[in-house]
Amino acid sequence: MADQYAYSGDDKRPTEIPAIRWEEPPEGPVLVLLDQTRLPAEEVELVCTDAPALVEAIRSLAVRGAPLLGIAGAYGVALAAVRGFDVDEAAAALASARPTAVNLAVGVRRAQAAHEAALAEGGDVRQAAAAALAAARQLHREDAEASARMAEHGVALLDELQPGGGHRILTHCNTGSLVSGGEGTAFAVALAAHRAGRLRRLWVDETRPLLQGARLTAYEAARSGMAYTLLTDNAAGSLFAAGEVDAVLIGADRIAADGSVANKVGSYPLAVLARYHHVPFIVVAPVTTVDADTPDGASIEVEQRAGHEVTEFVAPQVPVTGAEAGGGIPVAPLGTQAYNPAFDVTPPELVTAIVTEEGAVSPVTAEALAEVCARSRRAAAG
Amino acid sequence: MADQYAYSGDDKRPTEIPAIRWEEPPEGPVLVLLDQTRLPAEEVELVCTDAPALVEAIRSLAVRGAPLLGIAGAYGVALAAVRGFDVDEAAAALASARPTAVNLAVGVRRAQAAHEAALAEGGDVRQAAAAALAAARQLHREDAEASARMAEHGVALLDELQPGGGHRILTHCNTGSLVSGGEGTAFAVALAAHRAGRLRRLWVDETRPLLQGARLTAYEAARSGMAYTLLTDNAAGSLFAAGEVDAVLIGADRIAADGSVANKVGSYPLAVLARYHHVPFIVVAPVTTVDADTPDGASIEVEQRAGHEVTEFVAPQVPVTGAEAGGGIPVAPLGTQAYNPAFDVTPPELVTAIVTEEGAVSPVTAEALAEVCARSRRAAAG
Repeated sequence: MADQYAYSGDDKRPTEIPAIRWEEPPEGPVLVLLDQTRLPAEEVELVCTDAPALVEAIRSLAVRGAPLLGIAGAYGVALAAVRGFDVDEAAAALASARPTAVNLAVGVRRAQAAHEAALAEGGDVRQAAAAALAAARQLHREDAEASARMAEHGVALLDELQPGGGHRILTHCNTGSLVSGGEGTAFAVALAAHRAGRLRRLWVDETRPLLQGARLTAYEAARSGMAYTLLTDNAAGSLFAAGEVDAVLIGADRIAADGSVANKVGSYPLAVLARYHHVPFIVVAPVTTVDADTPDGASIEVEQRAGHEVTEFVAPQVPVTGAEAGGGIPVAPLGTQAYNPAFDVTPPELVTAIVTEEGAVSPVTAEALAEVCARSRRAAAG
Repeated sequence: MADQYAYSGDDKRPTEIPAIRWEEPPEGPVLVLLDQTRLPAEEVELVCTDAPALVEAIRSLAVRGAPLLGIAGAYGVALAAVRGFDVDEAAAALASARPTAVNLAVGVRRAQAAHEAALAEGGDVRQAAAAALAAARQLHREDAEASARMAEHGVALLDELQPGGGHRILTHCNTGSLVSGGEGTAFAVALAAHRAGRLRRLWVDETRPLLQGARLTAYEAARSGMAYTLLTDNAAGSLFAAGEVDAVLIGADRIAADGSVANKVGSYPLAVLARYHHVPFIVVAPVTTVDADTPDGASIEVEQRAGHEVTEFVAPQVPVTGAEAGGGIPVAPLGTQAYNPAFDVTPPELVTAIVTEEGAVSPVTAEALAEVCARSRRAAAG
């Protein structure tokens, strides 16, 4: 890719590398991403100089996670504007790079609207680009603040559900600072509990097929010094049966108006297990994840990804052979077809609470969700 | 390993390679195993000339699956006897090579008992060895016959549950001819339905961490020409929610007297999902899997396997580096601990039916199980 190049991880910084940052080197503004497909083996940064490079980074999951996708989308629009590309074309490509996370399109739209408004108010191209960038930075900041508030509300909820508890939390996929402008969603709650000395253990589902749990959540948990244990998604049932899980905490890619939650495939089976074992199933997501235009779970478009994610094993350490569809090591007979939905949908009746930056919604009903969204709009306007 | 050597897969036979066979080449009797750790990439046979080599093959999962372990254990005792090793020492090592599958110890004991009986009746060492081998061969034959009868009873049950149905069956782990003297347990039922034109689709759980579904069940399904689709274990929930599963069919490694079923980790979550979605959850296992000495699920010892099975990826195509604990490619940060039970336990109230060679037990109660075991003993005696 001509417009996407990598900084070598050889000069690893001792401090935490942000998942996303805007930089303005002499050769022009760029969006720098921590390439999540290379973690935990290597910390490599990916530098995008235009929107198509960012679209490719989104599709390949180099940048991922609902809140971060929104921020990336907004910066992508700003990048196109600052570098003088067609902003509407860039926005359209970015907004449709992946279908399920509503935050992506929302973030794109926000920067695009700021750009349009600046032009409409008589600003020139440079001023409009600055407005788009300011909108992206504002979204980035807001997301970090939302993380902190979700963490606070989440820990309060855990303490309420299990007073005085040393919480044993099961999580799925990756929801920390790698997906956020701040410390994330579900992981931010676990991290806050850890800092308060009230996290007994974080159970980390490996999260097949792409192993975001093993690769990314374990990486974040190890960095934060919390007690964590990795398990295959399969083994969660045994933990529930043994009474080793006090709560499930997950993020969300989209929440329908009725409270149905689309999240990484494997979330729904955890919700069913949690219900069967009377364990709270808690979704942590910013209000922007709620999509009022999606009435219910059945209306959520679930991204179907390529079968080779299941039939082949890919790791940064394995040279891409090109012999197979995904260039990885085949783990199934050649020609095997795979069913590979990226997400599943958990109905509201299986969700104990949705924790947002505006507080927890419990029980999860359309009315209660609408109310928290309205509160968020009032806070933004006020 | 001095006593375990491999036949190259270069001279692949067009016909199916048996999972286990006894051979008597000029240099002395051997037990030949199809090395299941190398499938589906390579069909390599492993030749065991003594019991320690077989113990190693059992531990490394080159040979696996409850019924086949019983057969392998019996042949292992015969091998020790025929080659003049200490039979009791070999039997003890074989019986404890893996803890969960009751069939292993049962098979070992059967050959050992035949050996003892021959000696007690005044036979010489050669005659006693012949008796042990005859017992192993008899067990092998009986298992093949039991497979055929389980398949018949299983298809009858499916047709009863869903008359006229084109069955969509979800299975977990590997239960076909690779684990059996015949065509297997759960897979044999699917195969019989396929031959009868009544299998619409076999959904194959990949079965982490060792991917027996992706590597072995997909291999068997592809060979048999059935319509099959691979999925991550995670994605089963979406299939249930979409109404795409008519029945779950799994095998068993041990069934307690109360009907609790120990099987590959990930079976219990499927049982909970099946119950939640009102889908039959059917266990297919020979009567020898029922262990009257294990009263209930809590009494079943569940094998805990090494964490590197979860934290590293190993494939025959990947050179073992030796740098990591399991010599594979790390998929989690170094030092990550993993929870890795090999099995889980499904309580009888979640099992719709247990299909044995003596017929289906449904509902699953201690009394009904005891009755089918008694019937089996009468058939053996009669």
